[in-house]
Amino acid sequence: MARRKLVYEGKAKILYEGTEPGTLIQYFKDDATAFNAEKKDVIDGKGVLNNRLSEFFMNGLMRIGVPTHFIKRLNMREQLIRQVEIIPLEVIVRNFAAGSMAKRLGMEEGTPLPRPIVEFSYKDDSLGDPLVPEEYIIAFGWASQQDLDDMVALALRVNDFMSGVMHGVGIQLVDFKIEIGRVWDNEFMRLIVADEISPDSCRLWDMETGRKLDKDVFRRDLGDLADAYTEVAKRLGVMPQNAAPMQKPTLIN
Amino acid sequence: MARRKLVYEGKAKILYEGTEPGTLIQYFKDDATAFNAEKKDVIDGKGVLNNRLSEFFMNGLMRIGVPTHFIKRLNMREQLIRQVEIIPLEVIVRNFAAGSMAKRLGMEEGTPLPRPIVEFSYKDDSLGDPLVPEEYIIAFGWASQQDLDDMVALALRVNDFMSGVMHGVGIQLVDFKIEIGRVWDNEFMRLIVADEISPDSCRLWDMETGRKLDKDVFRRDLGDLADAYTEVAKRLGVMPQNAAPMQKPTLIN
Ligand SMILES: Nc1ncnc2c1ncn2[C@@H]1O[C@H](COP(=O)(O)OP(=O)(O)O)[C@@H](O)[C@H]1O
Ligand SMILES: Nc1ncnc2c1ncn2[C@@H]1O[C@H](COP(=O)(O)OP(=O)(O)O)[C@@H](O)[C@H]1O
Ligand SMILES: [Mg+2]
Ligand SMILES: [Mg+2]
Repeated sequence: MARRKLVYEGKAKILYEGTEPGTLIQYFKDDATAFNAEKKDVIDGKGVLNNRLSEFFMNGLMRIGVPTHFIKRLNMREQLIRQVEIIPLEVIVRNFAAGSMAKRLGMEEGTPLPRPIVEFSYKDDSLGDPLVPEEYIIAFGWASQQDLDDMVALALRVNDFMSGVMHGVGIQLVDFKIEIGRVWDNEFMRLIVADEISPDSCRLWDMETGRKLDKDVFRRDLGDLADAYTEVAKRLGVMPQNAAPMQKPTLIN
Repeated sequence: MARRKLVYEGKAKILYEGTEPGTLIQYFKDDATAFNAEKKDVIDGKGVLNNRLSEFFMNGLMRIGVPTHFIKRLNMREQLIRQVEIIPLEVIVRNFAAGSMAKRLGMEEGTPLPRPIVEFSYKDDSLGDPLVPEEYIIAFGWASQQDLDDMVALALRVNDFMSGVMHGVGIQLVDFKIEIGRVWDNEFMRLIVADEISPDSCRLWDMETGRKLDKDVFRRDLGDLADAYTEVAKRLGVMPQNAAPMQKPTLIN
């Protein structure tokens, strides 16, 4: 079993030191949390599915020239990624009103929006990831105006691509969240898509039945979460072939 | 049987007057042509498949806010569209070198391009739709610089979305061609996607096998064209339910 240095353990993933400088290993746990970790459970197989699905989406983005942190999948639960300096924002793109936006504005869930809307929330669990206007972001120096413009452009490209992926398999992409980080090629700073893209971070509704195929199944107790994610993976032809359990590495720090 | 006024008969489609002013009915023929109509055949069922597939793609584009001429499908072979003033350009987006680009530059087909490349050819059968630099387009007044910028932006959004659709079903979008037209809302001119999006106008390669699922099957005698298009429609879950033959309308002009 691999011996690894732990870098960070979050709610859904663990980061270990990577095989080369500037890389990390991202381990996908089966843990599910919601409402700022007030609700918790372990969903057998979720990590395996999200590892595959995030690989599939990031690979597709790479093919259309959207830069991401993904380097390669290592095994059922782990992928090698490029280490970035995470911008402490959740970048959310919405095509239909749902979740916090529907609540905040008193809109019915599923109301189509006049156009895709990009919003930012400040990534801080102790504050509950509050929505922030762009003015705050610039004033507090989390990102520059140029960064914000680039992040909006990136997020909209991800939205077009992911909407296409889902449209092709009969699923409406309602909204999603990405994280974006900085990498340096010598002096030159670039923004790339980091973290994960999976049913944990998207709202996905079956086009025919409206069935939810995302983390809302867990948040709202609508059934079996692994079943929902399996349905997405099946439609996309990326079902894990051999979902044998895998042990965590032995820590050396 | 409907009685209709013919507006235009092209190589693959017929346009009739629509049900309301500013609309047209687009009838999809089974005719296939290549090399500027030097090669011709009738492919049973092609029109039915392209009518469905174009509906499916245009609907998806509409959902992400890319404006198109598509209003609704009327039957197996016809769709109601918004009449536009077609800009006489083929707008081509390439992700991999293929076809005329590969030939012109002596590149191997399938070479990935550094980024998606948008190019224009002048839509004129008697000239063989020649590739034209943007300078020509502006100098000859076919479109303004602003139009060109908008067309590039539209075409790249279509590319991101269509790449996603195809990625989701295991197909590489190699390149495609769209036509764009002008519509007026009072004084205000907008550009919208017109004509069709189908395996007639895209290059589609199976990701695993490299099998061609587009009009190159016909151009290069690689097998049964309807089989290839059926494969695309099947993967996208948009197979025509009832492909009964349909008579053409009785002309009244
Ligand atoms: N490429 C990367 N480089 C550095 N950090 C990353 C990268 N991708 C994601 N992260 C960070 O790793 C953590 C992923 O673990 P997760 O369980 O999602 O954490 P959290 O509970 O903080 O959301 C997140 O804090 C995320 O910002
Ligand atoms: N919405 C529209 N309004 C007007 N003309 C259109 C529209 N969509 C497509 N067309 C035109 O209709 C014709 C479609 O028929 P087609 O058989 O493809 O013709 P062609 O042989 O000229 O390519 C094309 O000339 C195309 O430019
Ligand atoms: Mg997280
Ligand atoms: Mg044509």
